[in-house]
Amino acid sequence: VLTVDQIPWFSSACHSQAWLVGVSGGADSVALLHLLKAAGFLNLTVCHLDHGLRGQAAAGDAEFVKRLADQLGYACEVAQGNVRQRMEERRESLETAARHERHAFFAACALKYGCQQVLLGHHADDQAETVLWNLLRGSHGLRGMQTVQKFTTETGVELEWIRPLLGVCHSDLVRWLETGGHPWREDLSNAEPIAIRNRLRNEVLPQLAEISGRDAVAALGRGARVTEEWLELETWALAQTTVLDPQGRLHLPTLRGLPRALQRRALRRFLEASGIRAADSDLLERGLSLLEVEHPAVINLPGGGKLRRRAARLSVEPG
Amino acid sequence: VLTVDQIPWFSSACHSQAWLVGVSGGADSVALLHLLKAAGFLNLTVCHLDHGLRGQAAAGDAEFVKRLADQLGYACEVAQGNVRQRMEERRESLETAARHERHAFFAACALKYGCQQVLLGHHADDQAETVLWNLLRGSHGLRGMQTVQKFTTETGVELEWIRPLLGVCHSDLVRWLETGGHPWREDLSNAEPIAIRNRLRNEVLPQLAEISGRDAVAALGRGARVTEEWLELETWALAQTTVLDPQGRLHLPTLRGLPRALQRRALRRFLEASGIRAADSDLLERGLSLLEVEHPAVINLPGGGKLRRRAARLSVEPG
Repeated sequence: VLTVDQIPWFSSACHSQAWLVGVSGGADSVALLHLLKAAGFLNLTVCHLDHGLRGQAAAGDAEFVKRLADQLGYACEVAQGNVRQRMEERRESLETAARHERHAFFAACALKYGCQQVLLGHHADDQAETVLWNLLRGSHGLRGMQTVQKFTTETGVELEWIRPLLGVCHSDLVRWLETGGHPWREDLSNAEPIAIRNRLRNEVLPQLAEISGRDAVAALGRGARVTEEWLELETWALAQTTVLDPQGRLHLPTLRGLPRALQRRALRRFLEASGIRAADSDLLERGLSLLEVEHPAVINLPGGGKLRRRAARLSVEPG
Repeated sequence: VLTVDQIPWFSSACHSQAWLVGVSGGADSVALLHLLKAAGFLNLTVCHLDHGLRGQAAAGDAEFVKRLADQLGYACEVAQGNVRQRMEERRESLETAARHERHAFFAACALKYGCQQVLLGHHADDQAETVLWNLLRGSHGLRGMQTVQKFTTETGVELEWIRPLLGVCHSDLVRWLETGGHPWREDLSNAEPIAIRNRLRNEVLPQLAEISGRDAVAALGRGARVTEEWLELETWALAQTTVLDPQGRLHLPTLRGLPRALQRRALRRFLEASGIRAADSDLLERGLSLLEVEHPAVINLPGGGKLRRRAARLSVEPG
């Protein structure tokens, strides 16, 4: 059975500091809140957003969360969003609009309570599903959610998402709640995407486990950790290396001496510094082809600019 | 439709050099052989091993391969293994015994023909299945097969496995064979492990593609490439760093300044140099706990030795 000391973040964090906690009323976030209480966190503000998608049932959720916060002796902030209106006004998808409403809500809480840290109930199954979905559509290996992630909202508010339960699976949280006799709200509107991710979770992950006789959720979690460490290694290694010349151009002889992962990271950083934020792996591959002198000396950039090789340097020419 | 210039290895390799090619007679290796011919490789030796598992059908495979090599104007080496006998004599699994028989066969070919390079027909679906299986049971992210892999057999013969088709999927190979009117042998004994890997390939990969609308095989291939690049980055970064003191002990202040991935790699290398080859992620994690002075100063090593922290250094004490 799950215990509080199995959650590393709990012992590393300051128990008297102020923290915001996102609580929908569902099992995961309710378990997070009770676990925080059990671990001795004193100064929490429970934050609950009604996305405005479920009418009356949502009012019940908000009531449940308010009562729970009250019972546990924590402050509570409840707000009403309007995802549908935002979808229409800004032509956003349900998923995007819901996410932006949540960000705006947490930004408002952060300003009101003078606290940037937001604790969230994401767990190992969420992580496995995220890792698998990122793997299928991306080119960064097994990227998942991070336990601590700095984030700036659209409106420029700096937040820090903190996910203490990323190593704990959903069924262990439910068992823990049941053992403690803690109720939660079922069938919450999870204004999240949906079909694909749900099918990855409900069909693929159990099937992987059944076929392999291994814990697929744990394997994907390990994969996400090792990938995070590799990205950290890239950052570190790039900081050890001077790849720009005094004029701020990419120095090709230096770049050629680096391993491929670092070449790619250096080029991405260089393009970002030149205002090219959309450097996908295709663009990076084309950009790195400039390292070879037998290749053409210029490639086109999104936005009309060019990346040009001249005098053993790469530089960006604006469009 | 597949063309020879879509296979990068073909244009980078020397067409007049001698190469061994493993050909079972199945679609993949037969396609590899025809593609090599079409790309203009002159000096191939076709190598075929009968594992001794299928009786008469195997004789038909060997005949087929011999005739094909003859038609294409290549030398051919056919041998008879005895996997069952090896299983009994050495108490090996079918999978292990079959692998060792193949290694022994290729080692013999390498010595006979003075050629270490062995071309193999592994393709993108093999790669995806390998990556997924490694992901489920390991802790190295998305490791797959490498296009070029140095290998030393049990008997000390150095070989190089080369897999030019790792980026091409099986169905493209079959279509290419059909278009060219090239026959192959069906239902070959694939003395490989089996149930798990077949189910990953036949059930999980198509389901991932169906659910996500993405090419899961390609995604796992991309993942393997980026993982290979990260491992190469680790090797490079470790070579840039002096982690040993003049007495050959691990220097903790240096180690503490490195990112986690590099700490782990440095410790693994250090343990290997001390004869500890079985450093799994658990042992490495325990070893790295010695970096923190509040942790105990010694851990046990497999084989009875100890890894000890003293005077800001780590050293191995033999058991």
